[in-house]
Amino acid sequence: MKSLLASAVCLGLLLAPPLGAQRSGPPAPTDAALVADMVVANHILASEGVLDGMGHVSLRHPRDPNRFLLARSMAPALVTDADILVYGMDGEPIDAKGQSSYQERFIHSEIYKARPDVQAIVHCHTPSLIPFADSSVPMRAMYHMAAFVADGVPVWDIRTMGLTDLLVKTAPLAKSLAQGLGTKSAALMRGHGAVVVATSLQNVVGRSVYLDQNARMQLQAVALGGKISYVGADEAKLRMSDPAEYSRAWDLWKRKAAK
Amino acid sequence: MKSLLASAVCLGLLLAPPLGAQRSGPPAPTDAALVADMVVANHILASEGVLDGMGHVSLRHPRDPNRFLLARSMAPALVTDADILVYGMDGEPIDAKGQSSYQERFIHSEIYKARPDVQAIVHCHTPSLIPFADSSVPMRAMYHMAAFVADGVPVWDIRTMGLTDLLVKTAPLAKSLAQGLGTKSAALMRGHGAVVVATSLQNVVGRSVYLDQNARMQLQAVALGGKISYVGADEAKLRMSDPAEYSRAWDLWKRKAAK
Amino acid sequence: MKSLLASAVCLGLLLAPPLGAQRSGPPAPTDAALVADMVVANHILASEGVLDGMGHVSLRHPRDPNRFLLARSMAPALVTDADILVYGMDGEPIDAKGQSSYQERFIHSEIYKARPDVQAIVHCHTPSLIPFADSSVPMRAMYHMAAFVADGVPVWDIRTMGLTDLLVKTAPLAKSLAQGLGTKSAALMRGHGAVVVATSLQNVVGRSVYLDQNARMQLQAVALGGKISYVGADEAKLRMSDPAEYSRAWDLWKRKAAK
Amino acid sequence: MKSLLASAVCLGLLLAPPLGAQRSGPPAPTDAALVADMVVANHILASEGVLDGMGHVSLRHPRDPNRFLLARSMAPALVTDADILVYGMDGEPIDAKGQSSYQERFIHSEIYKARPDVQAIVHCHTPSLIPFADSSVPMRAMYHMAAFVADGVPVWDIRTMGLTDLLVKTAPLAKSLAQGLGTKSAALMRGHGAVVVATSLQNVVGRSVYLDQNARMQLQAVALGGKISYVGADEAKLRMSDPAEYSRAWDLWKRKAAK
Repeated sequence: MKSLLASAVCLGLLLAPPLGAQRSGPPAPTDAALVADMVVANHILASEGVLDGMGHVSLRHPRDPNRFLLARSMAPALVTDADILVYGMDGEPIDAKGQSSYQERFIHSEIYKARPDVQAIVHCHTPSLIPFADSSVPMRAMYHMAAFVADGVPVWDIRTMGLTDLLVKTAPLAKSLAQGLGTKSAALMRGHGAVVVATSLQNVVGRSVYLDQNARMQLQAVALGGKISYVGADEAKLRMSDPAEYSRAWDLWKRKAAK
Repeated sequence: MKSLLASAVCLGLLLAPPLGAQRSGPPAPTDAALVADMVVANHILASEGVLDGMGHVSLRHPRDPNRFLLARSMAPALVTDADILVYGMDGEPIDAKGQSSYQERFIHSEIYKARPDVQAIVHCHTPSLIPFADSSVPMRAMYHMAAFVADGVPVWDIRTMGLTDLLVKTAPLAKSLAQGLGTKSAALMRGHGAVVVATSLQNVVGRSVYLDQNARMQLQAVALGGKISYVGADEAKLRMSDPAEYSRAWDLWKRKAAK
Repeated sequence: MKSLLASAVCLGLLLAPPLGAQRSGPPAPTDAALVADMVVANHILASEGVLDGMGHVSLRHPRDPNRFLLARSMAPALVTDADILVYGMDGEPIDAKGQSSYQERFIHSEIYKARPDVQAIVHCHTPSLIPFADSSVPMRAMYHMAAFVADGVPVWDIRTMGLTDLLVKTAPLAKSLAQGLGTKSAALMRGHGAVVVATSLQNVVGRSVYLDQNARMQLQAVALGGKISYVGADEAKLRMSDPAEYSRAWDLWKRKAAK
Repeated sequence: MKSLLASAVCLGLLLAPPLGAQRSGPPAPTDAALVADMVVANHILASEGVLDGMGHVSLRHPRDPNRFLLARSMAPALVTDADILVYGMDGEPIDAKGQSSYQERFIHSEIYKARPDVQAIVHCHTPSLIPFADSSVPMRAMYHMAAFVADGVPVWDIRTMGLTDLLVKTAPLAKSLAQGLGTKSAALMRGHGAVVVATSLQNVVGRSVYLDQNARMQLQAVALGGKISYVGADEAKLRMSDPAEYSRAWDLWKRKAAK
C-alpha cells in the first residue's frame, strides 16, 4: 500500500494538472486507482492465458492523452504497483526510476498517436493467435462475445519493413504496425503475436480474452469440415454498440487472478 | 447463513402456499435448500467450464410451476444465496431487491411456458459448443454419458427473427428459441451458445457438463478421419430411462467447485 | 486411520488364510496396505483425468485370487479406506456393509476369471479414448511409454450382445467384453469407454495414464497429415519386458493427487 | 538448507580446482548456487508440462567442462538439492551416494562430448513433440519465441542402430543420437521424445517450453488448412543473437513451480 501511494504521488507529479474541459462526466479516477487497475489488468491477462512471461498492457492517461501507463520490463503476472511507469508519446519513460523498459514499448506510443479513440492496448503472443498470424486463413467472428472480430483482423507482416529480428523495437516499425491495424480492434503480427485495442482497460482485457476464445473456436469449426455460418457484420455492429461489453466478467477474472 | 435464511424467508413470502395435490411423494425441499442448490449449481457450472463470466442456470419452483429461481445479473462463480431471485412467467423478477437482471432471462420464462416437463434450464456459451452452433455438422452422441444427444440437438438461428445484436433480450425472441428447442434436451444457438434443459437441477448440470464432453469427443473423432459409430437412438432411449443419471458426480463437482 | 484399521480387519476376516505356497518372494502386503494403495489409485486416476465422477479400479487380492478389492459406488476422487469392499468372482460383495455397488462391477469379476495373469483392472470413460472407441481408426503406439498399445487395442461393441442401455450390468455382458479383450492389455468399448489391465495396481494406473496420452498424441499425428512411424511390435515387446515400467511416476502422481 | 550445503561441499570436493584461465568474466557461481538452479530447473520443467514423471535436465559444470550435474533417478518435480549428483564424461556418477542413476544418462555425456558449445541439456517426452517425432512433417518455426526451430529440428530414429527397447541406455546409442542432433538446438527421437540443448540452464528450459508451444501452434496452423508463412532462417538468426532470450520468464516460471 505504501508503494502504491508513493507510485501514485509520483504519477501525479509527472502529469499535467487536470484539464477543466475534461471535468464534465463522472469524476476521473485518481492516479492510485489507475495504477491499481493496471496491476489487476496485468494479473488477469496472465491468469487467463493471454500473456505468459512476455507481452504487455498499457492505458492512456485519462487526464493527459499524451501519456500512458505501462509496466517496466518484467513478467505481467509479477507486476506490482511500484512497477507501473508513465511514458510519453516518444515511447520513452518520463521517469524510468532506474528500471529497464520493454523493448517493444513503441507499439503503444505509435498506436496511441495514430488512434485518438484508443485508450488501452494489449500486445500478446497468445498461443491460439499465432496459427492465424502465420496462416492465409482469416479470423472470423464465431459468437457475440467476440463480435469485434467481424470487423476484420488484419495480418501485419514485419517483413514489409525489411529484414528484422521480428521484434518491434523502433518507432518506425511500430508506426507501420499501427498502419496495419488501421481502424480495427485487433491485428495479427506474422511470426510474432497480436495487438488488441479498446476504449477502456476492461474492454481491452475482455477483447484479448475473447479473441483467444474465438481463435480456438474457429480452429475447431474448420476442423469439423462443414459449412460455417460466421457472425455477420451487421449483427456484430449492433452487438458492439454496448459500451459495457465485458464488465460483468472483470470481478470474476480479478478473483481468479488473485488466487 | 444469515443471508441464506433471509433469502429463504423472502422466497417463501413470494410463493403461493404449497398445493395439497403436490404433497404426495417425498417432502418438497425447503426454500433454503432450493437456494443452496442454486448456488452450488452456479459454482459447479463455472468450475466445470460450462459457464465463464456469462451464462445462467434456473430452477422452476417445485411448489409453484409459474415461478423460477435465477441469480441476479452477475458471474455464476460469484453467486451467493442472497443473489438468487424469483421470477415470474413474464421473465420479470417478483422482487428485484434493487438488483439488475440478466438481459436474456426470457430464455428461461419462455422455455418453462413451452415445456411443462422442464424443471431446470442452463444457458451457456461453452467454447466446445460454438463450433457446432456455427457449423452444418450436427452433434451426434459419442457415449452413454451423453445419450440424450442421440435425440438430436437442433440449431436455432436468431437471424430467422430478423436482424438482432445476437442477444435473446425479448420474450418473442425467446419464444422462437423455445420453438427451435422443441421437445429436445438441448439446442444450439448460431453465433451465440446453447440451452440445455432437464427434469432436475442435478440433471441439467450433468447434461451441460457431458454435452461439452461430447462436443470435444465428436470433434476429435471427426479429425481422426475414419468411419464413426455413434450411439444409436434405441440404445440412448434405454439409457435415458434412468432418472438418477448424473447424481453420482454431483458431490464430486460440488467439492471441486468449493476449492 | 481408525477406519483404515477397521477396514483392514474386516478384509482380513473375509479372506482365506494366506496360502503357504505363496510365501516365497517378498512378503505379501498387509490388508491395510492394500486398502491404502486402492485409495491412492482411485485418487490418482481422478487427479490425472483418467476417471471423472464415473469409472472404477480394482485389485485382485494377492492372497486370494478369487477375491478382489473395489470401492463402493461413488466418485473415485472421494474414496476413503472405509469405502473399499471385497468382491467375489460372482461380482457380488462379500460384505456390502449396507452400501450400493457399481452397476458395472461384473467387468472386474469376468476379466479376473478369464485372465489369471491380470491383477488389477481399470474401467474408464477417458475423453481421449471415446473417439477411438467409436472410430474405425485403430489405436497405434506412439512412444515407449505406451508400448503396450503396439500389441493392439481391440474395440468391443456391446451391440453384438443385442440391444442394451450401453452399460455392462450383467455377467454375460461382462464375459463378452472379457472375450473382446482377449489377451491384450486394453480394449475400447464402442459408445462407452475402455478397460485396461495389468499385473499390478501401479502398472494399471500407469497404463491408463499413458493410454490417454497416446490417444491424444495419435490424434495430433493424424491431424498433421504426414506419414506416421508407429512403434513396432518388436520394439514394444522388448520395452514391455521391464516389470517396473511406471513405478517412478507413482510418487509424483500420489503427491499431485493429494493436493 | 543443511542438505544443500552438504551437497555443495560434496560437489566441491569432487571437482577439480577452478582453472585460472576461466577466471576472467563474471565470477563463476558457487556449487551451492548451481545445485539450487538445477533444482529450480527440474521443478519448472515439470510445472510447465515439459517433463512428467520421466525425463531429465543436466548442466555442464562451469569450472570443469568434463563433468555435469544431473539428478538421481526420480521424478523431476520431486528433486531436492540432495538429489543432484555429479557425472563424468563416461556417463557414470563420480559419487553415486548409493542412489540409482537415470538409465538414459548417456544422452547427456555423449552430447557434452560432441558439442563443446552446449552447457545444458533437456531430455523430454513432451506430449506435443511426439506427433512430430513420429511424423514425416518437419517442425517449422511459428514465432520469434521459438526462433531456434527455424534452424531445423532433425528426427533421429533409434532403429538405425538395430532393434532396441527404444531407450538410449548405452553410450553408443547416445553417440548416435548426438550425431543426429548435429549442430542443431533440438532433435526429435522417433517413438520416444526429444533432446534440447543450449548455452545455459535458463535457455535450455526456455527452449524446451517454447519448443512445446511451437509444436502446438504448428499443429493448429496445419489444421487450419491455409498457406502457412513460417519464420525465415534470416529473421531467426537475427533473433537468436540475443543471449538473454528467455531470462524474463525465469522468475515467473520459478514462482509458478513453487506453488
